[in-house]
Amino acid sequence: MPPPRPLPSTPLLVGLLAIATWFVVRPFVDPFPPLPTLYTSVGFSLYALLATLYVIPAVGPAFIRANLKGVDLLKLDKSPVPESQGLVCASIYILLLILFIPFAFSNAFSSTMSAKGPEGLSVIEFPHYQLSVYLSSLLSLLIATVLGFLDDVFDIRWRHKIPIPIIASIPLLMVYYAEKGNTNVVVPLPLRFLFGTLVNLGPLYYIYMSLLSTFATNSFNILAGINGSEVSQAVIIALSVILNDLLYLPWPLDFRIPLHLLGSHTEVEVGGVWSAGMAYGSRELVERHLFSLYFMLPLLAVCLGFMYHNWYPARAFPGDTLCYVTGMAFAVVGIQAHFSKTLLLFFLPQIFNFVLSCPQLFGLVPCPRHRVPRIDHDTNLLHPSQAYFEKSPSPLTTMVLRILAALGLAKLTPHPTTGTIASTTNLTILNFFLVRLGPMSEKRLVQTLMGAQVAGSVLAFVVRYGLAGLVYDGNRR
Amino acid sequence: MPPPRPLPSTPLLVGLLAIATWFVVRPFVDPFPPLPTLYTSVGFSLYALLATLYVIPAVGPAFIRANLKGVDLLKLDKSPVPESQGLVCASIYILLLILFIPFAFSNAFSSTMSAKGPEGLSVIEFPHYQLSVYLSSLLSLLIATVLGFLDDVFDIRWRHKIPIPIIASIPLLMVYYAEKGNTNVVVPLPLRFLFGTLVNLGPLYYIYMSLLSTFATNSFNILAGINGSEVSQAVIIALSVILNDLLYLPWPLDFRIPLHLLGSHTEVEVGGVWSAGMAYGSRELVERHLFSLYFMLPLLAVCLGFMYHNWYPARAFPGDTLCYVTGMAFAVVGIQAHFSKTLLLFFLPQIFNFVLSCPQLFGLVPCPRHRVPRIDHDTNLLHPSQAYFEKSPSPLTTMVLRILAALGLAKLTPHPTTGTIASTTNLTILNFFLVRLGPMSEKRLVQTLMGAQVAGSVLAFVVRYGLAGLVYDGNRR
Repeated sequence: MPPPRPLPSTPLLVGLLAIATWFVVRPFVDPFPPLPTLYTSVGFSLYALLATLYVIPAVGPAFIRANLKGVDLLKLDKSPVPESQGLVCASIYILLLILFIPFAFSNAFSSTMSAKGPEGLSVIEFPHYQLSVYLSSLLSLLIATVLGFLDDVFDIRWRHKIPIPIIASIPLLMVYYAEKGNTNVVVPLPLRFLFGTLVNLGPLYYIYMSLLSTFATNSFNILAGINGSEVSQAVIIALSVILNDLLYLPWPLDFRIPLHLLGSHTEVEVGGVWSAGMAYGSRELVERHLFSLYFMLPLLAVCLGFMYHNWYPARAFPGDTLCYVTGMAFAVVGIQAHFSKTLLLFFLPQIFNFVLSCPQLFGLVPCPRHRVPRIDHDTNLLHPSQAYFEKSPSPLTTMVLRILAALGLAKLTPHPTTGTIASTTNLTILNFFLVRLGPMSEKRLVQTLMGAQVAGSVLAFVVRYGLAGLVYDGNRR
Repeated sequence: MPPPRPLPSTPLLVGLLAIATWFVVRPFVDPFPPLPTLYTSVGFSLYALLATLYVIPAVGPAFIRANLKGVDLLKLDKSPVPESQGLVCASIYILLLILFIPFAFSNAFSSTMSAKGPEGLSVIEFPHYQLSVYLSSLLSLLIATVLGFLDDVFDIRWRHKIPIPIIASIPLLMVYYAEKGNTNVVVPLPLRFLFGTLVNLGPLYYIYMSLLSTFATNSFNILAGINGSEVSQAVIIALSVILNDLLYLPWPLDFRIPLHLLGSHTEVEVGGVWSAGMAYGSRELVERHLFSLYFMLPLLAVCLGFMYHNWYPARAFPGDTLCYVTGMAFAVVGIQAHFSKTLLLFFLPQIFNFVLSCPQLFGLVPCPRHRVPRIDHDTNLLHPSQAYFEKSPSPLTTMVLRILAALGLAKLTPHPTTGTIASTTNLTILNFFLVRLGPMSEKRLVQTLMGAQVAGSVLAFVVRYGLAGLVYDGNRR
């Protein structure tokens, strides 16, 4: 195996360790901060980052010995790289979330509680009854980890593994049902004359929840193949969710985002100790977004730690395990904190990739085992990979591909004699970038992907806070 | 691989399926039964049995392909047998426990609830607040499964893996802490003049809980090596726990066990609709033992299903996964249903085996990689295996071994010239049986082990209900 990437400099690591410890200790020191549990969460997340940075290379040889290894398809060096190391991220992540339980759900900060201030929200920061919701989320994450790892070990075929995340969502559904979870959704303004303000989806809501898990998981899984592609998506989506959550917290200051510049007729107000800005004074909304933060902060941390080793040239591969656990984590917060529509907006590049992939996923176009771009080892640049037609394609396939080509989403090669389509570039977002922007290096391609993801998130925020006012009123339950 | 064992006859399987479905449907049919959730649990357990019977051989080839295979040390046939198939048992077990949540914790039986009868206990059969306790138990079981499977995949050395079950017990401890679990224990009568009736163990109680998980898991792990040994222990202990739980349920009839014949001065009364016999009218005790039954019934089922394929000559191996998940399941019910002392009584053969193993575990006596008995392929009989001393043993080792030999627990071979101990039989209960009872076949040896386990459980019941009255009064909280 190639030598593992050396760790960052020791002073940096020691500094991080000190900062992490400060965050964990701070809630116990007078004057007690508001939202003490959030301090703990940040501290734990920094510990998770350090642990991931350290453990990933440390267990690499054991993974290789256990036959959990892969060859980098896009490198000349064919020595094996440890595979499925998303397992390390998932283990650290879940273990920390478990150790976090007493801080979130007991009276660990009871000394703090007596110190009521204007930030009084901290006192009832997190209700104990939510413990079972938290635990069911952990169960789903753990099942996703197990299934992802089994997928890596048993190498399940992709057509069979698409429904697997539904199994991981069962604990969420069961506890949601047992706790008589709300299955109402708010109807967009233009449809209210038909359905009223709230519509009870009933069993459909459960189907929606399990489909959300399936989508979040598989959308990462099919956007894979180059160094850092899986984990960088997770990092940017986690950052977006965290940013969105922060808008709902009781900040000491209160500011406005001038969204009227974007044509919205609602003004967005953020922060404000008691009214908690975007939470419109709703304690429930603050609690939900705290719940989301408690899951997203450590997820971001383990993903960043893993990205350090997975960055080009990768010294560790994520395996399906990482896709499963990160996808499930996003589904969990979207469902439990009730912002699944906003969450889906952060998945715009994944949705684009999924829609683009459909002709190959559903058999219209041949789908080779790997659809990763092809490398030209002389220039070290990636080129779009091709799917070849053994016989001339059906009229439907031809039409679909011609439309995609006209939109600039694929590049077709005609058959030299018959003129029918002989091959097409594989229908993924990565090949699309290469078709549009020309050949580029692997590192550049993953940076382009990350750029698209960031652009998608910016667009998502504009849609959510700028345009949503057009179809929803202020009642954002 | 050797061909899998054929399934039992189809009429039997179809019959079982019909009975299982009857149990699941019965609670919804008028007249509604008391304890409807228990019917569901029995039905689900029968499904689990059928699923295990069917899935174990079905996935065998996939396990072999994924390099999860082992060679039977005690057979001439060296073709690989699927290993770690405890994973199948654990998956079915945990999945069913998750699907069971709505039945145990929602108002699924609300129609039943209106039908209050003298069996009124069913109405408040299971309080919703226990959901988080149930979920933390599932988390612990799932972590035990993951760790067991990782142990199988990475082949962790035994000295390193002894503390692993502590990790699996963390969710139990965290939720116990968050829920402000009771850390008091009842003091035995002879010590009350020192400590009073109740003593608060505080943090020690948490250490006790994690040690219990560690003990239950590892005691199975070190009593392994012959076909059926791990799973048969689990079956008999599960049966014993179930029998003990049944004593606390509100049975329609009310009978007495004449324990005064054994010299006890308390009479044991079982059953009785309202007072629920051994529960002394305590709803809490009934609930605890129902909780235990909900975990033990499906455990027994998957173990029986697995035993069918693991029985001599084994067509499937359990791997460490089975030991981890069964050990953890017993620890979970012992802790959550508060009968850990009674539970430990059911582990008498394991405790004997552990104490006997100590000289080898702690390095007094050499410990070979495998301590399973040695087979003589001519007679097909097992003989005790030996641990050899490379240099003459220390005086302490010599003394310990001489005592064990005098007690008939080991057989020593003197050095032909110096007269010091040259070798000893390995210090396990299996070798002990062979030393005492002479060579026997593998099947006979596992039957002997099962006999010892049954005898241990009978003794446990006598101690618990006959002798406990001497050191505890009726207050059995």
